[in-house]
Amino acid sequence: MKSCGIIVEYNPFHNGHQYHAKMARELSEAQVVIAVMSGNFLQRGEPAIIDKWTRAKEALSHGVDLVIELPFAYAVQSADYFAAGGIKLLQALQCDALCFGTDNQVEMNYEQFGSFVNEHQTEINHAYQEIKNNGMSYPQQMTEVFRKLYPNGTLDFSSPNHILGLSYAKENATYEKPMLLYPLKREQAGYHDTKIYQQFASATAIRKAVFSGELSQIKQVLPMRVMKDLEESPTVSWEAYWPLLKYKLLSSSLPELREIYQMKEGIEYRLQEAAKVSDSFQQFMEKAKTKRYTWTRLQRLATYILVNVKQYEIENVRQNSYIQVLGFTEQGQRFLKEKKKNLKLPLITKISKNVSTQLALDIRSNQLYQLGSDRILEQSFGRFPIRVS
Amino acid sequence: MKSCGIIVEYNPFHNGHQYHAKMARELSEAQVVIAVMSGNFLQRGEPAIIDKWTRAKEALSHGVDLVIELPFAYAVQSADYFAAGGIKLLQALQCDALCFGTDNQVEMNYEQFGSFVNEHQTEINHAYQEIKNNGMSYPQQMTEVFRKLYPNGTLDFSSPNHILGLSYAKENATYEKPMLLYPLKREQAGYHDTKIYQQFASATAIRKAVFSGELSQIKQVLPMRVMKDLEESPTVSWEAYWPLLKYKLLSSSLPELREIYQMKEGIEYRLQEAAKVSDSFQQFMEKAKTKRYTWTRLQRLATYILVNVKQYEIENVRQNSYIQVLGFTEQGQRFLKEKKKNLKLPLITKISKNVSTQLALDIRSNQLYQLGSDRILEQSFGRFPIRVS
Repeated sequence: MKSCGIIVEYNPFHNGHQYHAKMARELSEAQVVIAVMSGNFLQRGEPAIIDKWTRAKEALSHGVDLVIELPFAYAVQSADYFAAGGIKLLQALQCDALCFGTDNQVEMNYEQFGSFVNEHQTEINHAYQEIKNNGMSYPQQMTEVFRKLYPNGTLDFSSPNHILGLSYAKENATYEKPMLLYPLKREQAGYHDTKIYQQFASATAIRKAVFSGELSQIKQVLPMRVMKDLEESPTVSWEAYWPLLKYKLLSSSLPELREIYQMKEGIEYRLQEAAKVSDSFQQFMEKAKTKRYTWTRLQRLATYILVNVKQYEIENVRQNSYIQVLGFTEQGQRFLKEKKKNLKLPLITKISKNVSTQLALDIRSNQLYQLGSDRILEQSFGRFPIRVS
Repeated sequence: MKSCGIIVEYNPFHNGHQYHAKMARELSEAQVVIAVMSGNFLQRGEPAIIDKWTRAKEALSHGVDLVIELPFAYAVQSADYFAAGGIKLLQALQCDALCFGTDNQVEMNYEQFGSFVNEHQTEINHAYQEIKNNGMSYPQQMTEVFRKLYPNGTLDFSSPNHILGLSYAKENATYEKPMLLYPLKREQAGYHDTKIYQQFASATAIRKAVFSGELSQIKQVLPMRVMKDLEESPTVSWEAYWPLLKYKLLSSSLPELREIYQMKEGIEYRLQEAAKVSDSFQQFMEKAKTKRYTWTRLQRLATYILVNVKQYEIENVRQNSYIQVLGFTEQGQRFLKEKKKNLKLPLITKISKNVSTQLALDIRSNQLYQLGSDRILEQSFGRFPIRVS
């Protein structure tokens, strides 16, 4: 059965995502579309607006056949690690193709780029080390590195989606049997866009509308079912977790904070001081932000603090990955049956005592996600893959 | 200047406390009444209903001349350590007498009891070790121990206030110049009483009325000023901190929980499991309670968890105690001036960077206390002793 993977967050699911799933199927001529989706905490260090089970159900109702959870250890990471996790799971599922959105450069040869990076990793690292501390932003540095080394034209590192695309290509090329790559030009709404267009809007614009209570504005850019979920299900933002983050920062000693994953360079003191004088997450972030720490990097660190993540927990998951199924259509289930015996990672369809050590970080992050609203249901134990027919 | 100490919590201040201060002055013929008062967390492991500055101000308006804070490390402790802290501070202030409330046994010779315990500590410890694990409650065990050893009649360990009185006597007798002891029979309302009498009610009954919104019921048992504070100031109970305690228990690993002061015998796992399925502090306590852990002991442990207390922090304060002044009347200020040069512990009237390491546990517990309501004012930095004339 021919399959095409997509690596997603759905925060929340919208028409652009439906278009992505549809085009993935069309471009790759796949019989099954597999979404590897972040769980309840996302790449940019945020809680998902709606819980993972609801988002999985929405995806399965709008063109996706199988939803696999991207574990916390991969999901809440910068582009390279996020991509590595997504590709690893799709490769473990023996997926044939990968379709990813990009704001530009649909025409470039991603396979060629992937091979180039893997063949020239040493030079690239070297060039990057040389300019690492020159004060330029990460996108600027990367543009500079590849302008010198890459023979096939200029690369654009200004768009987060495009950076992800390049990371997918790079990671994919490390496998013995790389997936076919299908870049897809995003329709109208760019990643950073905050406006709402005719049928498409960025997830950022949609979240903004939800939290300002202007749901009517976004009716045309979401499937009806998602609209209903946003109206009726508990929706959360960082602000719901702010009292807990503040408590964690104020109650922990500096040595304790230093044990948290990615806590470096004395930032723990700055964060503690910022927490003391802040009454909201927004305020805290504005006070804590420095030139060195971008908003996203800081927000990811805030998530690690909230979830009390340790380095060894991330390493555990990297060394012992797994395929946790959140849901499937009949077609998705057929695909799983077909591949079952040849999967390269353990398949998890139910969280039992047996797997609770391996999945400890996911389980804990889910429990803490639940603290954002007393209406969020149990996320781990007793949950089974959602079936959509 | 002749002085009489009292060791108090004022949760909240009521007519019985005013009577206590008045009688302390009368019985001891003191010119100055010094209250050593728990800060924002109390002996039985609870947050104070009203913050310490407000309670100090109330006391100073109703018969107390000087309010000293009993540090967290002494306040949130079983009777013996609580008493040790209170006596230590009064001794450091060269206080002449101690007046304490008791529900009974006003007539017994407390000085004699204190000397007896200090002279027979080895036998007492031995007798206690022998029956330690026989399943009896602590009061029953103590009654048993002293029934065998004490020559001067039966001792009553059934009342918390009386146990405190015995602890004061025992501790006081260890000093070179013990204070004169004035036991005072409590008027009408016993420690465990929940009814409201004509003019006197226990603090327990008063808190119950406050949290059930029945303030009118307690009008006659409180000074008017306290009544006004209870109506207008932020009042908190454990429930306000429950989301934070739950978060702390769910986000910490078992080894991390084991680092907390007094976390013993594998109780950490039980507490974590109880937190997962509880929606309120009350529910959590009911689920976590065992025969081995009384409500009070468990509640104290909950406070240590909330405040993230470590063994070394308690020891630090025991080894480097201090006298933190919360407020005084003119008479109290005169007393401090008179004694200033001969104090046996450092006097702190302002929290500066210099003392913030020494007072770290108090400062942190105050910051966390503030999280119970956004109306609670800063408790440490920039606060000066309250003057009541």
